[in-house]
Amino acid sequence: MERLMRDPRYDILFEPVQIGPVKTKNRFYVVPHAISMGMSSMDEMVAYRKTRAEGGWGVVCIEETMIHETSDHAPLPDPCLYNDKHIEPISRIVAAVKEHGALAGVELAHAGASGPAAYYREHPLSPTAKFPHYFYNPISARTIDKQDIADFRRWYRDAAVRAKTAGFDIIYVYCAHNLSLLQDFLDTKTNKRTDEYGGVFENRVRLLRETLCDVKDAVGDSCAVAVRFAVEDRRRVSNITAQEDGRRVVEALADVPDLWDVNVSDWPWDSGSSRFFEEGQQEPFIDFVKKVTNKPVVGVGRFTSPDAMVSQIKRGILDLIGAARPSIADPFLPNKINEGRHDDIRECIGCNACTAEVMTSVRIRCTQNPSAGEEHLMGWHPENVPPADDPDKNILVVGGGPAGLEAAHTLAKRGYQVSIADAGSEWGGRLVRERKMPRLSTWGRVVDYRVGQLQTMVNVNMYLDSMLTAEDVAGFEADHVIVASGATWRGDGVGRNHDEPIPGHELPHVFNPENILDGKLPSGDVIVYDEDYFYMATVVAERLARAGCKVTYVTTASDPAPWTLNTLEMVHVINSMNEIGIEIVVGTSIVSISEGHVKTSRLLTGAEHIRAADAVVLVTGQISDDNLYHELVKKRDAGEIVSVERIGDCLGPGQIAQATRDGRKAGMQFGRQAK
Amino acid sequence: MERLMRDPRYDILFEPVQIGPVKTKNRFYVVPHAISMGMSSMDEMVAYRKTRAEGGWGVVCIEETMIHETSDHAPLPDPCLYNDKHIEPISRIVAAVKEHGALAGVELAHAGASGPAAYYREHPLSPTAKFPHYFYNPISARTIDKQDIADFRRWYRDAAVRAKTAGFDIIYVYCAHNLSLLQDFLDTKTNKRTDEYGGVFENRVRLLRETLCDVKDAVGDSCAVAVRFAVEDRRRVSNITAQEDGRRVVEALADVPDLWDVNVSDWPWDSGSSRFFEEGQQEPFIDFVKKVTNKPVVGVGRFTSPDAMVSQIKRGILDLIGAARPSIADPFLPNKINEGRHDDIRECIGCNACTAEVMTSVRIRCTQNPSAGEEHLMGWHPENVPPADDPDKNILVVGGGPAGLEAAHTLAKRGYQVSIADAGSEWGGRLVRERKMPRLSTWGRVVDYRVGQLQTMVNVNMYLDSMLTAEDVAGFEADHVIVASGATWRGDGVGRNHDEPIPGHELPHVFNPENILDGKLPSGDVIVYDEDYFYMATVVAERLARAGCKVTYVTTASDPAPWTLNTLEMVHVINSMNEIGIEIVVGTSIVSISEGHVKTSRLLTGAEHIRAADAVVLVTGQISDDNLYHELVKKRDAGEIVSVERIGDCLGPGQIAQATRDGRKAGMQFGRQAK
Repeated sequence: MERLMRDPRYDILFEPVQIGPVKTKNRFYVVPHAISMGMSSMDEMVAYRKTRAEGGWGVVCIEETMIHETSDHAPLPDPCLYNDKHIEPISRIVAAVKEHGALAGVELAHAGASGPAAYYREHPLSPTAKFPHYFYNPISARTIDKQDIADFRRWYRDAAVRAKTAGFDIIYVYCAHNLSLLQDFLDTKTNKRTDEYGGVFENRVRLLRETLCDVKDAVGDSCAVAVRFAVEDRRRVSNITAQEDGRRVVEALADVPDLWDVNVSDWPWDSGSSRFFEEGQQEPFIDFVKKVTNKPVVGVGRFTSPDAMVSQIKRGILDLIGAARPSIADPFLPNKINEGRHDDIRECIGCNACTAEVMTSVRIRCTQNPSAGEEHLMGWHPENVPPADDPDKNILVVGGGPAGLEAAHTLAKRGYQVSIADAGSEWGGRLVRERKMPRLSTWGRVVDYRVGQLQTMVNVNMYLDSMLTAEDVAGFEADHVIVASGATWRGDGVGRNHDEPIPGHELPHVFNPENILDGKLPSGDVIVYDEDYFYMATVVAERLARAGCKVTYVTTASDPAPWTLNTLEMVHVINSMNEIGIEIVVGTSIVSISEGHVKTSRLLTGAEHIRAADAVVLVTGQISDDNLYHELVKKRDAGEIVSVERIGDCLGPGQIAQATRDGRKAGMQFGRQAK
Repeated sequence: MERLMRDPRYDILFEPVQIGPVKTKNRFYVVPHAISMGMSSMDEMVAYRKTRAEGGWGVVCIEETMIHETSDHAPLPDPCLYNDKHIEPISRIVAAVKEHGALAGVELAHAGASGPAAYYREHPLSPTAKFPHYFYNPISARTIDKQDIADFRRWYRDAAVRAKTAGFDIIYVYCAHNLSLLQDFLDTKTNKRTDEYGGVFENRVRLLRETLCDVKDAVGDSCAVAVRFAVEDRRRVSNITAQEDGRRVVEALADVPDLWDVNVSDWPWDSGSSRFFEEGQQEPFIDFVKKVTNKPVVGVGRFTSPDAMVSQIKRGILDLIGAARPSIADPFLPNKINEGRHDDIRECIGCNACTAEVMTSVRIRCTQNPSAGEEHLMGWHPENVPPADDPDKNILVVGGGPAGLEAAHTLAKRGYQVSIADAGSEWGGRLVRERKMPRLSTWGRVVDYRVGQLQTMVNVNMYLDSMLTAEDVAGFEADHVIVASGATWRGDGVGRNHDEPIPGHELPHVFNPENILDGKLPSGDVIVYDEDYFYMATVVAERLARAGCKVTYVTTASDPAPWTLNTLEMVHVINSMNEIGIEIVVGTSIVSISEGHVKTSRLLTGAEHIRAADAVVLVTGQISDDNLYHELVKKRDAGEIVSVERIGDCLGPGQIAQATRDGRKAGMQFGRQAK
């Protein structure tokens, strides 16, 4: 491959930045982000962070690292530094990061009332006693008293010294995401104290100031001290806004920290999904910060475009381009920009499959980058693949959706002769139609990246408009066949609540997502019925509302689109449905469908109601399109083809992240001993 | 202490039982139960199981142990035996159990569609493709094909051989709790196959039969092979009932396994809480089993009474007395019966604090036995405590609720001179009144056990009707003071949703739980408002409905009493409210209260409504009663008392398990280096 050169427009991104006593090699900065591995998965943590450093990021931070047993997010497995015994394992991450020339940062945190103290079973701490944020656990956070405040400051100092001992270059004080005791002190909703830590602004900021000064005193000689600060609470009416106390905090502490890492809270607004937020969406909130402080500023915005990054710096918004999700999706983003390989960037699609795993206390995953979180467990690398033992072998991939494209790309990178065929006239499988639905266009990057890569590869043949029969496949004489033929939404209502078809599902006014994706829309009063629980039903609802239907969204779940709680989208889904005038009915099953109405049952009581509807869209389960696979199994058993496997929705319908994961696995395992 | 003797009535409980090739030492049997520790917490697992063996149980089983990566309950940390590398760590549990003369059992399991495959990211398996049970994860379980079935049988055999290698005496095949692929094959709702594994009964039972025979072939020479089988699915209308296919399975396989471990499914009916189920509640479902098989039968029923146990055996219901929760609450239950120490038995209260931790993927805890789950982490033992260095030291405990009683008991066992005082005329603190509320009487065992123990101890002085001032305490000249003065329900509506008081809360028709606990009841149409999210609001609602009120339960949560999902009570809470005629309104906030009505807001939309009400009961937050503590801190700082600490609800309101945990910690740490 021709050696490409960096575009001089992007030179500015590769300038070093002085942060207190340390200096970065460039402006690419992996901000702290949870990966849900924890101290008992240290090998996995090391491999994950190391890979980002290897990809060229100038700074690689680890996430919320707890300073004390009273700060306990269990079952979320956070790292911790509240005991000297944690120094050695944590230092392994530092060493791995620094080996690649990156600075290593750590976000020291006390979660305050944001944890239910489920592991250590100490009472959570709060400026003023209250229930924990977010969790339902039957425990109240207790009011932190003067002795506790002294202890808290000591814990922070001690943890900072441990962090320094472990080798970190940048040590954070954490005050963001409504996940921090220090932020609770700033917030007049959570701080009702009448002592010198409550009341007027200077009192509420006191503990943050003291903590920053303590940490600077303790480690500031050789370590940069950063603050992670949410300048605006977008979750609710709050005194913390970029006009009010958010700004005042930056003004009051302007040059106290060596680095301002700024964002908005809570997490659903900070890591807003692409369905609801654009690249760079935090700028209007954080753009004042550099005007107030002389210290460098880092912020995030799901930046994947080097031009957008340059603009942030030239316009004086940021000094360092912070990234969590773009670094998950492409750990090698800086190196690719440096090498002029812009088309090779695997851009984050903002789907928040990553946050969903963290929210459910499972290690991080990524739709675009199936190696994320698997660096150790599966030994996968975002760029490198094991070379083919026998590069003459030819593999046929049937189906050009996310699973098939990923399998083809992985196999082609390994050096095999790869053919990929799809029955349709566009690449993308499910995404051909889904990316055209409301708010889903960014997801198309899954297709564009892979197709773009495959089209440059000499060992790849790509066939559209190629509906293959089992005979066609056998005639191809491939050494291996991978069937990635996808799935179809079922129309009978069988889903999470219904084991049996819904009576009336066969009536002509009953639709399913296939119809809507095909542009066959109902009109009038439409019920969109959700037993899928992720995005499709609310996307269909919005599509129909935009087309003029009067839409009622009905679901058996207690919350609308419940899985979107984990993708940080539920609040935005609800708000957008309200804005567009979609009525929301939760906890309700459709018992049967008749012309002009449905019979519903409220799950809490079993009470049945009749609800008028001109049309019903059943968004329930999907069925794998696996006929070809089963025919090929017969041909394999008959010796007519060598081997066959199925992946993605053809194996079992799932999220796109599962499809790319399946594709990677198939691509990695061919020709090698099964794991 | 006088050496007591076993009551001959209970001799039958200490008879050995032959189970296939192995023989128990008695009839006490710890059935498999999840403790949510997992392979990365092996020291904790070993310590937990070992303690049960030490306490005299003849058999100690470990929980669901996964046979393959496709069986993945993450984030719940199950043990596993799908790889030879797991043998050594698991064998440490076996060795610890057998050291105390118990047989060791392991419940080999494949979770099928009950897991979302979140860790290994393989597609879950199901007889017929469907969404996972219980979880919302966006993935479908896939249809297990013929090759998969062959693999599944091989995984089971291989895992059984590993279990044998690890030293287990009893090896299970798991088919219960709606958490098992094998059970899904039996169920006509989940098995829609048309091959020889679906359709008629003999087909649906085929895989269970094959698996049992495979495992017997593989390890039956020296290991007993048990089946865990749910004879009736009580969750929904099902073919699996004790009259139909549940019975037919036992008939069809009667003498195939060496042991039948029988129960009902799902878990909320198997481990039914004491609010809704009595000791021995499963008997009507499982009593047929011994009539059908010649093999020994074990079952559970939250048995804590030796008389009830004897009755089960004499009446031919069970051969072995299975226990999960009673063995959590009192690991030494068998030894105490053996030694005639019936008053020392720490009886399970059936509160399901244990299941709540497992449901939230945190290691097990217990209200009655705060050492449960802490055997390794805290080094706590259910019976043994470190002796006092200086037994002349006298400690004053102020407050005779769960926290104070546990602290006093622990300190008294250690040998200190303990005084405990309470302002009331009965021991029990919060439980004095709570145990008299509907369905909560069993919780009184927390008090009765501790008071019973304390009353026999010569180094304990107990004072009722003793409201102590700070001056009284100082005059007592204790070497240490523990304040356990509890908490009070607030009446202003500040809770999980409201940071500020609810306007109108001060009106005379607005009540709080203190009023209801005191017997001061409203009448007419009453709204019970829940921002507590655990049991109190629904208990108050039932109390008022029984007293003739027309009750509407209103909560900001999306589900009624949401924490009760984790105590396995939500479904029973809902059913009982429906039965008694309580209207349920979810997702709704009370905005303000006026005479005769309240203004509510639907959280999903912000839509406000007026709802008539003669009275409102605000079940929201609690406030610690910590005035005495703070006065004593001043006296300590002035040198008027030696030392003081606060525990339990006085420190921060929480569940009773937190109070006994705090009490144990205070009792264990006095006079010792703080952990």
